[in-house]
Amino acid sequence: MMTDQGSSLFQIALQQRAASVEMLLADLLSDRPHTGEISRPPRLMAAMRHGVLNGGKRLRPFLVMESAALFGADTHAALRVATALECIHSYSLVHDDLPAMDNDDMRRGQPTVHRKFDEAAAILAGDSLLTYAFELIAADETELDAGAKVALVTALARAAGIGGMTGGQTLDLEAEKIKPDEAGIIRLQAMKTGALIRFACEAGAIVGNASPGDRERLAEYGSAIGLAFQLADDLLDVTADATDMGKATGKDAAAGKATLVSMHGIDWTKQQLSGLVAEAEELLAPFGAKASLLRDAARFIADRQS
Amino acid sequence: MMTDQGSSLFQIALQQRAASVEMLLADLLSDRPHTGEISRPPRLMAAMRHGVLNGGKRLRPFLVMESAALFGADTHAALRVATALECIHSYSLVHDDLPAMDNDDMRRGQPTVHRKFDEAAAILAGDSLLTYAFELIAADETELDAGAKVALVTALARAAGIGGMTGGQTLDLEAEKIKPDEAGIIRLQAMKTGALIRFACEAGAIVGNASPGDRERLAEYGSAIGLAFQLADDLLDVTADATDMGKATGKDAAAGKATLVSMHGIDWTKQQLSGLVAEAEELLAPFGAKASLLRDAARFIADRQS
Repeated sequence: MMTDQGSSLFQIALQQRAASVEMLLADLLSDRPHTGEISRPPRLMAAMRHGVLNGGKRLRPFLVMESAALFGADTHAALRVATALECIHSYSLVHDDLPAMDNDDMRRGQPTVHRKFDEAAAILAGDSLLTYAFELIAADETELDAGAKVALVTALARAAGIGGMTGGQTLDLEAEKIKPDEAGIIRLQAMKTGALIRFACEAGAIVGNASPGDRERLAEYGSAIGLAFQLADDLLDVTADATDMGKATGKDAAAGKATLVSMHGIDWTKQQLSGLVAEAEELLAPFGAKASLLRDAARFIADRQS
Repeated sequence: MMTDQGSSLFQIALQQRAASVEMLLADLLSDRPHTGEISRPPRLMAAMRHGVLNGGKRLRPFLVMESAALFGADTHAALRVATALECIHSYSLVHDDLPAMDNDDMRRGQPTVHRKFDEAAAILAGDSLLTYAFELIAADETELDAGAKVALVTALARAAGIGGMTGGQTLDLEAEKIKPDEAGIIRLQAMKTGALIRFACEAGAIVGNASPGDRERLAEYGSAIGLAFQLADDLLDVTADATDMGKATGKDAAAGKATLVSMHGIDWTKQQLSGLVAEAEELLAPFGAKASLLRDAARFIADRQS
């Protein structure tokens, strides 16, 4: 669905944004104590860096920064908010990998934090990344007015907490037993992965001091691509296995988890993805050419092969 | 050190403040979704309530509210900030009790969250309480200006994170192996337990829109009673065992952990505690009779028997 040229411009922009986020993270999470800190335990910092500097695509930070750019926002402020969001995403992976949760030993070709360090270090590194995200948004160094910071903290806490990510993770752990219906699956996914992607786009609008209407428009764009993200993930779980392993069912089916793909099939899912990309493009229409990278992002998310 | 009358007035005030915090917590952590939340998983809410509605003394919320009262602060705003701080304190206990950390089955006569539910629920309940604390401070319902909210989020994140509580927990886990010297022990304790108590008192000053000088004065009062809190804790670990079990060493000694009490002895520790109470009283002197409950709090912390 994406032209080669659009695709390569998007890939370059994604990599550039990722490099900025990683440079800032490496600097912020050094062993050197910052303002207001008594000291920084080197082992905690090493565990945090291992959890967050993991070669991720940095899609959520990209969405924050490109959404902010639509409104001519201060780049440094957008980068700090984007980095805070990546700390939240990374903490959720560190805790998700724990033996009591998904019990994963490897992530992106590296040992997970509790395998490289130990479980206590992984718990504390996750807690610290979560806490640090809010400091990053609120602290003096960010060129945002206090009202914008408060809006960001509120929206991020809601997206990451009870009615968002951690709530969705809880529902996901129960899903094998409770067997949610279609509405239940949609709600679970909107909470577990959708809320943080929606926040990413809304956050860019807040940083850019957008009108309430534009802020809602970006949030809706985020919801559309968040749903596409999860559908593509579910599809990949089926098709990747179908190719690699010669069977049509993957991890979700093995775990007894129903997905929209297992309910409706591959063709229906591809149609839904096209519909969501069209919806995302329509929401971005008022921004014209300025939004071309966000249009590419929607197609990238729907088409992604990994 | 405390007169009977002062003691009983303080105990009544402490219980009244605790009741307010618990009523608000029970309401905030009900199963009914709040603004901006897609839904609330009942099992997550039950685990969070179990972790936070645990019969604690609510000393930190008391300190927030009494410090705020010194400056004639809005009671409702102070209560919300106090409750947010109790969410942070409670999350730290839920995660601390996990098998990979202190591996405690019981807390205050009840099974710990991972024993009553399971480890995954305890991890997610802790994460959710931590996240929710920041929402509680930042969300619209609090009658604080945006600048105060930003100052509170910043100070709380610093007190609870790398350079404060989670950093101190990391140092504490390493202490059996690394054997910190006296300065190291003081730093560890200032981070692990001191930072949040210092924040409690500083937060009251922020909520009350105190001058920078008064804010610093309250923070220093918090540091003094935070150190007293830990010394009393270490002393209790020795003296409670000496009485009950006929031996002069307790949990810390058994775990191979040096404390200031094991280094300097009981008499030195009691002298230090008297000195810290005197320091706290001196810091409160400018506030006269208005600060009498905070004076009582300092004595209560230094004298406490449990």
